[in-house]
Amino acid sequence: MRVKKHPDIRSGELLDCAQRLFFAHGYDNTTINDIIREAGVSKGAFYHYFSSKEALLEAIAARLARGSLEEIRPLLNDPTLNAVEKLNSLFAGSRRLKVELAPQLRTMFDVIFRPENIVLFHRVDQAVTRIVVPLLADVLREGTEEGLFDAPDPEAFAEMLLLFRLSLSSMMHEALRKSREGNIEQAVKMLDDRLKLYGTAIDRVLKLPDGTIEVAETGFVRALLDDHKKGSE
Amino acid sequence: MRVKKHPDIRSGELLDCAQRLFFAHGYDNTTINDIIREAGVSKGAFYHYFSSKEALLEAIAARLARGSLEEIRPLLNDPTLNAVEKLNSLFAGSRRLKVELAPQLRTMFDVIFRPENIVLFHRVDQAVTRIVVPLLADVLREGTEEGLFDAPDPEAFAEMLLLFRLSLSSMMHEALRKSREGNIEQAVKMLDDRLKLYGTAIDRVLKLPDGTIEVAETGFVRALLDDHKKGSE
Repeated sequence: MRVKKHPDIRSGELLDCAQRLFFAHGYDNTTINDIIREAGVSKGAFYHYFSSKEALLEAIAARLARGSLEEIRPLLNDPTLNAVEKLNSLFAGSRRLKVELAPQLRTMFDVIFRPENIVLFHRVDQAVTRIVVPLLADVLREGTEEGLFDAPDPEAFAEMLLLFRLSLSSMMHEALRKSREGNIEQAVKMLDDRLKLYGTAIDRVLKLPDGTIEVAETGFVRALLDDHKKGSE
Repeated sequence: MRVKKHPDIRSGELLDCAQRLFFAHGYDNTTINDIIREAGVSKGAFYHYFSSKEALLEAIAARLARGSLEEIRPLLNDPTLNAVEKLNSLFAGSRRLKVELAPQLRTMFDVIFRPENIVLFHRVDQAVTRIVVPLLADVLREGTEEGLFDAPDPEAFAEMLLLFRLSLSSMMHEALRKSREGNIEQAVKMLDDRLKLYGTAIDRVLKLPDGTIEVAETGFVRALLDDHKKGSE
């Protein structure tokens, strides 16, 4: 007899299983049949939780984002940090996590940044955005109240600031391609320059001096791309 | 015997025909068969030019964008205008065209702003962006050289400024829905507020005083939505 499990546990196990297979063999090389065989559930049970393989990847991305935010949350509640420091900690935290999770993220990036995967990209992106916007809006509200910067409509400003990330996606796809071809220096410079502009755009929208918010960081882009290069050798 | 026509003429006629049918009966209610019957071409000839109905809508959007830019181009070459005035004329011109073209655009907006049409939206949006970015980058370069504002990387800044428009699309979908339901005041306020923020965000990225670039304009949103309401009665 099959052991009855709580639905959240069952769907969590499916996610663990799918994540392990996607990251081990690649998203394209893993079928729904592989996942249900490995997880030991019926096809019916699978489709009860997830409508498609894309839905699984979306859920994995949302879970990674939620997990990252849990790690970052203590920073956001730290009373010794002002809102600018929190924004910078947020970006630094997300960079640190990106490097730590690079092997997993590489699989995700490789899939979602392909131009033909726009629907998937959009789903993953929306899932992550829904988690990040309220949190960013809180920091923007705090900084505006503290008089550190100026975001008159914190939710709308959070959405607009996050839109800048979309200017990175085609650039990221291109940089991954270049680094795979061995043009790592070119790829690093391209991505690094765009991350600096991203930071400057945020500074300006919030009326902070250029260079206040650091989205880029020496070494981060190289670590991410170098790791990517290693991984595909 | 079929009259041999130059390929550009033939594809232009297919576009005219599709545009007429889409705008008369709606995109969803028009089939490829309707279009080839009306245009008097074979299915083979149709697929020689367009891979799908979506590709047709994308081409129609690109043609409308190119047509609009042709109308706007004299402004951009006007030596009596500085770059800030050109930016404002660009937005004013695009507003004027949007009101003039409202009946056609309504059909397009109704289709592309639906959440299930994300792929189509992305295609139409990319087609329009490819046309607008180089032109906007020219004005940004000019204004930076004139010392009127500050866009150190005009192409990247043009891309980033245009990203703000994406914060409008879910809002536009919502406003169209509200105005159809009769909540026109609410819809107007919602869209108007967001357009003002869009303008402010552009000002700030370029280091201009808040309120310099006018994306919103009293009456524009109302005209667009009122017209929409009339059209669907």
